[in-house]
Parts: sequence; structure tokens; C-alpha cells
Amino acid sequence: MSIEREIGKRLGNLRESLESEGIDAILLSNPNNIRYLTGKETGRVLISRESSVIWVRELYLELYSFSPEFDVRADEEDAVRHYIKDSNIKKLAVENLLVSLYERRKEELGIELVPTNTVERLRAVKSDYELELLRNSASIAKKGMEKAYEIIKDGTNELDAVADIEYVIRKAGSETPPFMDGMLLASGPDGADIHARARMKKVMATDLVVVDLGARVDGYYSDMTRTIPVGEPNPLAADILEFIENLQAEAIDRIHPGVRAGDIHDFVSKEIENRGYKFYHSTGHGIGLDVHELPNIGPKSEDALEPGMAFTIEPGIYIPGKFGVRFEDTLSMKKNKIETLTG
Amino acid sequence: MSIEREIGKRLGNLRESLESEGIDAILLSNPNNIRYLTGKETGRVLISRESSVIWVRELYLELYSFSPEFDVRADEEDAVRHYIKDSNIKKLAVENLLVSLYERRKEELGIELVPTNTVERLRAVKSDYELELLRNSASIAKKGMEKAYEIIKDGTNELDAVADIEYVIRKAGSETPPFMDGMLLASGPDGADIHARARMKKVMATDLVVVDLGARVDGYYSDMTRTIPVGEPNPLAADILEFIENLQAEAIDRIHPGVRAGDIHDFVSKEIENRGYKFYHSTGHGIGLDVHELPNIGPKSEDALEPGMAFTIEPGIYIPGKFGVRFEDTLSMKKNKIETLTG
Repeated sequence: MSIEREIGKRLGNLRESLESEGIDAILLSNPNNIRYLTGKETGRVLISRESSVIWVRELYLELYSFSPEFDVRADEEDAVRHYIKDSNIKKLAVENLLVSLYERRKEELGIELVPTNTVERLRAVKSDYELELLRNSASIAKKGMEKAYEIIKDGTNELDAVADIEYVIRKAGSETPPFMDGMLLASGPDGADIHARARMKKVMATDLVVVDLGARVDGYYSDMTRTIPVGEPNPLAADILEFIENLQAEAIDRIHPGVRAGDIHDFVSKEIENRGYKFYHSTGHGIGLDVHELPNIGPKSEDALEPGMAFTIEPGIYIPGKFGVRFEDTLSMKKNKIETLTG
Repeated sequence: MSIEREIGKRLGNLRESLESEGIDAILLSNPNNIRYLTGKETGRVLISRESSVIWVRELYLELYSFSPEFDVRADEEDAVRHYIKDSNIKKLAVENLLVSLYERRKEELGIELVPTNTVERLRAVKSDYELELLRNSASIAKKGMEKAYEIIKDGTNELDAVADIEYVIRKAGSETPPFMDGMLLASGPDGADIHARARMKKVMATDLVVVDLGARVDGYYSDMTRTIPVGEPNPLAADILEFIENLQAEAIDRIHPGVRAGDIHDFVSKEIENRGYKFYHSTGHGIGLDVHELPNIGPKSEDALEPGMAFTIEPGIYIPGKFGVRFEDTLSMKKNKIETLTG
């Protein structure tokens, strides 16, 4: 399917959502929501039940061509306000903006604003076109991970390893480095710190090394984690490695169309607690144009996992002073089948 | 100066600000604001006139040691609410949060919230300790740019170049890749698109190549842009290259303690307009723990540029279908003197 037809379909789905929520129109400013609906990452976009308008800076009027469904206009002061007034829009949805921007919009537009995550919810369900991009992205992440297994040895400097692995990921065609702050690589006791970043420090023979990386292709992220033992792991480490790998597989086994994401998280969390540890983060997250998007697979999440969704499952145990263990894959659900994109 | 003494000074400055704004306390959740005030990037932090409390997840109680100024507690549900109630805090400042989080906090805490950018304003003025980190960060960025000049030739693939340059930046000790989406490298007509990213495409002998990169050291970013002609630039390109380089120098010459940032922007913008073009972005931005922070050096900015501030100056001209030209440096102001960190 071409991106043009994709966009047509997405706009149709959005209009259905707006109608069912009783909303007249939605004004978008989140670049990834705009990218999802227009194919570009700039401007302000208003989708009403009848029309799709994008206001862009003069430069982009010349540079970009938009899908014919869009009425493309110059982004001048008050342009959006005038349009909304003229089209008699009464109830306008906006994204989850920063308070300051939200207040400014409210004042500027002088109309009721309804914060909504409609576009984010639509984005959670991927088309075949999107799943193919996720697959391509995942295949680059896997190349990076192969490199990690190859170079992580007794004496490897963490930062050097990260430079080498990110190099492979970029050369393989990732359009950005893995994630905002780069990939994560934490050896030995640093692995117990979820926030730890690679530093000028040598990996040791007795270490477990947590490696969390991804790639980006045509906007779509992938995300995977492996915990790599440098030498023969000690009995506790070997035990926890096996436990977490198995737990990940069991959690994935429990996923079926319609399952409540919070239930998957509760299962993982309880298993880790039964083992005598605490689970310090969410079981997983949706993935696509953002590394973290809907569905939320964490405590109390009421999100249902549905066919077409792409998400990670990433149980972990972190033992201060000792090590951390996490395994993570990017998965997608197709009908009743789970595909492991990073497997 | 040690980071401990830095933190003590920062807390003192923050308390002065709170007092002058008539605010009882500030509740922080922005990781970079928390890092600025605690040295770590986790938890929720409340600074009142009398006390500094940080609530962290159990894992971090074990993992991290905080500055002795902090009362470190486990982040349990309602912990913050109870503390605020018990300490009789009536007027609580919060950061510029997402609307959803803001509403949740208001409901959860049941007290007046005042959005403020106090911490961001304090962060705009750097100490000698911070300026030294910025200098180290800039010196890594310069190494990346040297690599760019070395490898950009007729026939170089854009994505390969980016992989090579980011590799140099990482190897030199940058703790993250340059910026969230990696460095920017755009050749020929792509240079006219401010949003363009490197892609599988060969640089040509007649191209100008816009290269925008940086590094990060102990949290501090640097940011620099050069426009590199591959061969002999055509007369128009040569002209604009010279014009923008000179304009950047002239803009920097106009900076002195107390100058209104909006005036610097107006100067740059008018010069570009007099030349027959439009200026499509801001003249610059503060830089530190965020790539973009205060001061704002854009249209209508009332921010004053003051000694201790670190910021970029980056004029540019973008000609659709032809090329883009931008030069950018990270600068700092010390008394009356401007230091070019990336020069």
C-alpha cells in the first residue's frame, strides 16, 4: 500500500473517532501525530469532519508537496483562529499539550478545548505497511545486537562498545541513533541501575552486561534488550538469566486478542515478587513513530492488546551492588499470532 | 568547585527565587531540573524555603547516595501529598507540565499550583564549573566537525558520513549521540529543508553540505553547524556563504551584558531580509543540560543576555531547490567577553 492510500485510511479512521466522541475537529501540533496523518513533520493541522487543513511556514509551501486531501496554507498569525471561526467549529480537540501552550491556545482561539489522545490510540494499531517498516527497523536492531555479542569481552570499554554498535546500526540504515540518548550498555553493578549509561569503564569477566538498543526506519522504531554474560555467570546470575528469559516467554504466551495489558503486567510483576524481588518498571510499551507509545503495558493499564498492535515485553530483575537482567523484544500481534520482530 | 558545593549554591539561588515570587515550595518532575538540583535524574523533588526532599523508587534508595542537604524518602503513593499537607504549604510551584499531568497533580494534591520556569531561568546562567563542562563538550563537537571536513567529498553517502562522524564523537567520550535524532547532514537542495535528515544519497561536487552536530559531557550539550562546500561553490553559493559567516560575526559583536535577545534576533532577521531572503528560525538558544533552553534568542524575546549564559548564534538562509547555508557556534559570555566554545 502506498503512503498516500495509508494517509487516506488514517484520515477516515480519525473522522470516525471524532464523530463517535462528538468532537467537531482536532488541532494537531505533535510532530509525530502530524507525520502520521500528513507524511511530513511540520506545520499545524486541523482535521474536521469535512476538511483537512495544514498551515506551514512559507519555506515548506515551496519545499513540500502534500497529499491532495490537504488544503495547504501559509501559517500566518491568526490563520487558525480565523479558520475555526469561519467553519463554525464549537468543540475542538487538542493533544496533551504543555500547560503553557494549552492556555495560550485557549486564549488565542477563544473556544472550548478538549484534550484527547485519539490520534495516539489510532496509532497503536498498525497497518501491514507499518508492520513492514517495524520489521525493517527490527532487523537493523538485530545487527547491532550481533555486534554487541561479538565485541563484549573481558576488558572492553563500555563507551567504545557503544560507539562500535551504534556505528553498525547507522551504517545499516537507521535514520537516527537508537533512542534519544543513544543505546544503553551497563555492565556489572551498573546493570542494576535502570538509568545507567555507558561510561569510560572496562567490562569484566564476571559481569553481566545489559544492552538495550534499537533503530529507526521511515520513522518507525524498534527496541530490544539482551543481557550478555561476559564469562561463565555465577550461579545466582545464571539462575536469574534463565528465570527472566523464561518469564518473558511465558508473558508472551499469555497475550491474545483482547487481553488486558494490566493483567500481563500483573502476571510478570507477581512472578518476580514470588522470586523474592521487586519489579521496578513497566512490562512493556507500544512502539512505532515513538519509542514509547500506546498501548501501556504497566500497572493498572486498562488498554486491551489487539491485532495490529506492536509492543515490547521486557521483564527485568535488578539487584543493587550486583547486576541487572532484562530481556526485551519488539513484537506484533496479527490475528491470534504473535510475531517476534527482534527475535 | 565540587558538584556538592555547586548543588548547595543552586539550592540557595532557588530559595531566593521562590521567596521573591512569594512561593512556598516547588515540586519538580523534569529530569534535567532534578539533575540540576540533586545531581541525579530520578524521583520527585520538593524544595521549600526550609527543606529539600527527594522521593525515589526503592531501588534508588539503595543505589544512589544524595547530597546531605536532601531528605531522601521512598516514593510511596500519597507521600508527596501527605508531606505538603503536614508542612502547611499553601502555594506550590510546578514546572510547565503536560495538561494531563498538571490536572492529575492538582487533583492529587488538592492545593493551588503555580506553573513556573524558575529553575529553567536559574539554569540559564552557568557557573565556572558548568562552563568547563560545556567547553569539554564543545571540544568533542569540534572533533566531529573536523571529521566532517575530512570525509565530505564528491560521492560520499550521507548516511555513511553520519555514521563515521557520530562514531568519532562517541569515541571521543560523548555520553550520548549528538541530539535526540542524531546529527544533521543535508547536501544540495536538502540543505534548504531545516527538517532534512541524512539519507542514502550521494553528496555531489556542486553541493553545499549543512552539518549540524554536538556532543554531551556530564549532561552538558554543545551545538555547532558548518556549511561545507564540496567543490568550488557557484557565485551565488559563495556569496551567501560569506554573507552568513559575516552576519554571524556581526551578531556576536552586538552581544554585551544586558542586551535584549529579541534585538539580536531582529538585527539578524533584518539583515537577511535586506538581502532578499526570509529568516525561517530563531537566531539562537541557550544550551546546557538541554540542547534548547533559556535564553530564547528569537522574535520578540525579552530575555536579556547576561554574563554566565551559554547560547548559540546561528543565522541561515534557505533557498528551495538550491541549497541552505547556516553557521552556528556555542558561545558563552564572561563579564564583557564572548568566548566561542566551538570556534
